[in-house]
Amino acid sequence: MVFKIENYIRDVKDFPKEGIVFKDITPLLADADALQKTTEELLKLVPSDIDKVIGIEARGFFFGSLLATHLNAGFVPVRKPGKLPYKTFEESYALEYGTDKLCMHIDAIKKGESVLIHDDVLATGGTAQAVAKLVEKAGGEVVMLNFLIELSFLNGKDKLEGYQTSSLLTY
Amino acid sequence: MVFKIENYIRDVKDFPKEGIVFKDITPLLADADALQKTTEELLKLVPSDIDKVIGIEARGFFFGSLLATHLNAGFVPVRKPGKLPYKTFEESYALEYGTDKLCMHIDAIKKGESVLIHDDVLATGGTAQAVAKLVEKAGGEVVMLNFLIELSFLNGKDKLEGYQTSSLLTY
Repeated sequence: MVFKIENYIRDVKDFPKEGIVFKDITPLLADADALQKTTEELLKLVPSDIDKVIGIEARGFFFGSLLATHLNAGFVPVRKPGKLPYKTFEESYALEYGTDKLCMHIDAIKKGESVLIHDDVLATGGTAQAVAKLVEKAGGEVVMLNFLIELSFLNGKDKLEGYQTSSLLTY
Repeated sequence: MVFKIENYIRDVKDFPKEGIVFKDITPLLADADALQKTTEELLKLVPSDIDKVIGIEARGFFFGSLLATHLNAGFVPVRKPGKLPYKTFEESYALEYGTDKLCMHIDAIKKGESVLIHDDVLATGGTAQAVAKLVEKAGGEVVMLNFLIELSFLNGKDKLEGYQTSSLLTY
């Protein structure tokens, strides 16, 4: 049987709020074979010469850590305010109403390092763009932004112009 | 040079509040070699016949996903309320003041499955105990609770009596 990643993604209606169809990746994570194969497929999409992989809180941590070890790179979590214990760079991004922030430890990325940013879903691109700015604040080079799923109808790539991007699944 | 995991753990004073010395594992994650070696060391501590590895939100997700793929098991995130999109089992646990809850998808663990629970730190044991109860609600068998770090002066193991536990580092 051919492996189809989309068979392991569950649509959950009205989450986190009415009218939104949420792409639930937990069935994929819970299946040992699907977890391995998805990691392999993601690895085909990204450059091999990477110093650090960033995972965006919290669903970007799953495949972010896996990509890091397969690429023999370090792993860096980018988190919401108040979660990282040491000194951080901060970057704001727009929400539907208001703004939110993402943080990265100031010593997480060294000057000139090649950085792969990973998240599970590319939606409006606001968080991914903020993370790219964090990497640049630290002097790192954003080599690619990689996603498991791209929701193309939200035009997230517009915010990421000038960056290389890749996604395993596009809706 | 001998690999010493403790060289990659940073003490951060007064986080998350005054008087607490926080064990920051991000320097360990950010170092490609330390990340690999720590995964190998954790694997030596756990049984190999595991169906599902649970990672506890959010720092349990890093090595939780890595352990899952190395053990050829599925990965299950246990999360705070409101984070998992599908139907969940819930379990409350005591905080210093009041209580909090943890959630797991109702179809994450199948009856009779062997489950390894992983978190970065064993402190008072409250969250780990709650997760063990979630697994048992789903009909799974808790084979072991595994931690990167045990803060033994908080006596977390008392709450986990009757369960197998293992930790890579004990303070």
